[in-house]
Amino acid sequence: MKYFLLAVLFLSNLIAEAQSQDEQFIRKIYDEALARGQSYEMLEHLCTKIGPRLSGSPGAAAAVEWSRQVMQAYGFDSVWLQPVMVPHWVRGKKEIGRIVNSKKLGLEAVNICALGGSVGTGAAGVLANVVEVKTWDELKQLGEKGVKGKIVFFNRPMDPKIIPMFSSYGGAVDQRANGASEAAKLGAIGVIVRSMGVNLEDYPHTGSLRYALNVPKIPAVAISTRHAELLSSLLKDDKELKFYFETHCETLPDAPSFNVIGELKGTQYPEEIIVVGGHLDSWDLGQGAHDDGTGCVQSIEVLRLYKAMGYKPKRTIRAVMFMNEENGLRGGVEYANQAKLKNEKHIAAMESDRGGFTPRGFTMPSDAKAKEKIRSWKPLLEPYGLADFNQEGGGADISPLAPQGVPLMGFLPDSQRYFNYHHTPEDTFDKVDKRELELGAASMAALVYLIDQYGLK
Amino acid sequence: MKYFLLAVLFLSNLIAEAQSQDEQFIRKIYDEALARGQSYEMLEHLCTKIGPRLSGSPGAAAAVEWSRQVMQAYGFDSVWLQPVMVPHWVRGKKEIGRIVNSKKLGLEAVNICALGGSVGTGAAGVLANVVEVKTWDELKQLGEKGVKGKIVFFNRPMDPKIIPMFSSYGGAVDQRANGASEAAKLGAIGVIVRSMGVNLEDYPHTGSLRYALNVPKIPAVAISTRHAELLSSLLKDDKELKFYFETHCETLPDAPSFNVIGELKGTQYPEEIIVVGGHLDSWDLGQGAHDDGTGCVQSIEVLRLYKAMGYKPKRTIRAVMFMNEENGLRGGVEYANQAKLKNEKHIAAMESDRGGFTPRGFTMPSDAKAKEKIRSWKPLLEPYGLADFNQEGGGADISPLAPQGVPLMGFLPDSQRYFNYHHTPEDTFDKVDKRELELGAASMAALVYLIDQYGLK
Repeated sequence: MKYFLLAVLFLSNLIAEAQSQDEQFIRKIYDEALARGQSYEMLEHLCTKIGPRLSGSPGAAAAVEWSRQVMQAYGFDSVWLQPVMVPHWVRGKKEIGRIVNSKKLGLEAVNICALGGSVGTGAAGVLANVVEVKTWDELKQLGEKGVKGKIVFFNRPMDPKIIPMFSSYGGAVDQRANGASEAAKLGAIGVIVRSMGVNLEDYPHTGSLRYALNVPKIPAVAISTRHAELLSSLLKDDKELKFYFETHCETLPDAPSFNVIGELKGTQYPEEIIVVGGHLDSWDLGQGAHDDGTGCVQSIEVLRLYKAMGYKPKRTIRAVMFMNEENGLRGGVEYANQAKLKNEKHIAAMESDRGGFTPRGFTMPSDAKAKEKIRSWKPLLEPYGLADFNQEGGGADISPLAPQGVPLMGFLPDSQRYFNYHHTPEDTFDKVDKRELELGAASMAALVYLIDQYGLK
Repeated sequence: MKYFLLAVLFLSNLIAEAQSQDEQFIRKIYDEALARGQSYEMLEHLCTKIGPRLSGSPGAAAAVEWSRQVMQAYGFDSVWLQPVMVPHWVRGKKEIGRIVNSKKLGLEAVNICALGGSVGTGAAGVLANVVEVKTWDELKQLGEKGVKGKIVFFNRPMDPKIIPMFSSYGGAVDQRANGASEAAKLGAIGVIVRSMGVNLEDYPHTGSLRYALNVPKIPAVAISTRHAELLSSLLKDDKELKFYFETHCETLPDAPSFNVIGELKGTQYPEEIIVVGGHLDSWDLGQGAHDDGTGCVQSIEVLRLYKAMGYKPKRTIRAVMFMNEENGLRGGVEYANQAKLKNEKHIAAMESDRGGFTPRGFTMPSDAKAKEKIRSWKPLLEPYGLADFNQEGGGADISPLAPQGVPLMGFLPDSQRYFNYHHTPEDTFDKVDKRELELGAASMAALVYLIDQYGLK
């Protein structure tokens, strides 16, 4: 009994010591990130010197080469490019949008932009009457008779009453994704979608649409929320109102591009890989700051922090800049393909693609044991404002790793401001707060450190 | 036994029902604030139509009358002004700051502003050598010999490694508050204080100083953090460098002003008062948006939300716009005086004076029972991101109620961006996010509702 008690005492001392070491190590991660962090300077370069970087664009190519050089300059153990062919959509000349022959306003210019992947109207434009719907049921009710030859205006707003903004987005984005094909099935010749923003704004939000197979591809644009309200109010007593829009976008042949990968080799279990990543491509309208420049520089910063602190991870830790999240996910798919081909053993993957805002927590893997293990670390993370470990999910780029049984998780910053900027000309460097960005990088480094130390089994 | 069990069952049903009613009511508060909230429109008016409102200024008078009219228009049961005499400091002509005869730069203009309450230099200005210190010990070491006839430059930065920014502020603001008098005791003729901001910025942060009794009042200015770095680096190998500054501030006789109070009368315990408040005065450089326009409009919004929802509080709920938090606290002191004189029974007071950022939680009263009661409501508040119930404290304006035994608490938003704006020309309406502001108002209304329902005993 005496020896048993001594053993228990010894063990609990060991555990307490480990906890206190972890506590100290995590504190040092935050110290380094906040006092000597480099994520903000990296982001400034990526946003203001390179700027927008839609898949296939020169900006995307510049971002690939820049991030390769940055990780090499930091002296990561290996840095390499993983080739992947990507869709190459270009916006072309600035779009024109006009309300025509309105009884109240006559002719009125409105702020629109083509949706990513849309066919263009060319110089002829599209001119037609407009029917407004908020639900798929309303569209169905209208039927071919009500829709044929017209422009369908999808105007269901993001619900402001929903607290997590990604859930609010989830309740409206089906219009952007599927609106064009659903309207085309009934004979529509064009589609206007209310921008995915919760506030009244003057600028439109772009984003991908999905054309269904064997349905005519009709041109689709997003309209600013303020002009969506205007159009809707005019339509109420003016059924003869027409809308004109002109877009010059087109899809070119697939283009060569790359995922960019940097790695610190594990000292004890080099074959066990932990991925931390964001996506390097962005929409073309802003600078891709919150979406997803922040996730990229935070991922690089995680490895840089370890190097700066002299930390040698037990497992191999990879920063992955995925290419083509916005309009194809080809980079994420290729990364998972290669992992499978090479028989790589990924023990965890974390994505940061919700903006560089103040940290709130992490989204959890679906695996119950992994989830429980992460939650057991809550006392170590809560002092840094990481309190939300409730939602499940990883991120788009890492999702193709799911079939290989990799536990997927996401960095979870505050979501309230994200959709002010998402996919708009406003997504620029100056919208990112230095400390919020740095705290995010440190939070990611803290959780990756714990996974590196203890695994997720 | 059977009846006992039935009674237990009955009671636990009652409790569950109450909880579910509270849950639903709180959900409705957020719905109203997010879908039809008016705090943002109020703030826009206060910031952009009225603007800065330092105690004694025409702006402060306008803000008093505006908030009285707003609360009256909302139909609160009573709205009144509580007279209070306030200090009346004016900045006068824009300050001039120059590094003079620097070996490297010659003459260099730098960004400074007078500290609130400082005496001015007048047109003669102050020109002298500069000694830099970071601690009180360093100042003491220099002694009269090292300080006499010179300008003391207090250059201890806010520590970026501290996570809650108010703690970081607390570790540096003593320089601004006491620097002038401590330097004057040793014969200094002027003081420069590094601005209370954690980032490198071009604009200075103002804020109050305190002159000690029987010590010569010497002029004091804040310098932007970027120019503090410049000055410090020049001083390293250039002891002959001089600094010139000119300020035209002065303290006029006390001026009449008011706290503005709006009230919903309690239906069951009208004599029990719950205060929710912010301060109406602001510094003169910006628009007083985060400091503390947001706290004012959120407090009004709490009562407006109840009225809009048809909620009749059991207890009396007061929105108080305190006057003169920034440079005197006269409003807070007078409110507490009047409460004592009238023998009013305040059962709780909550202040919002940490900016209109995304909600994190509340700071707690020191009373253990009250604290425990609030924490027992955590499950009702956590779904709204209110997870931090750890820190103690109320707020400056309500602190004079402490001797009357009133439980004091504070609304606790995220603190990371606050000191980018605090006391600067950057504290403007456009720095406030609509949803973050609205969520704050709803959070305050939720906790005040629970206190109204159940008290804090």
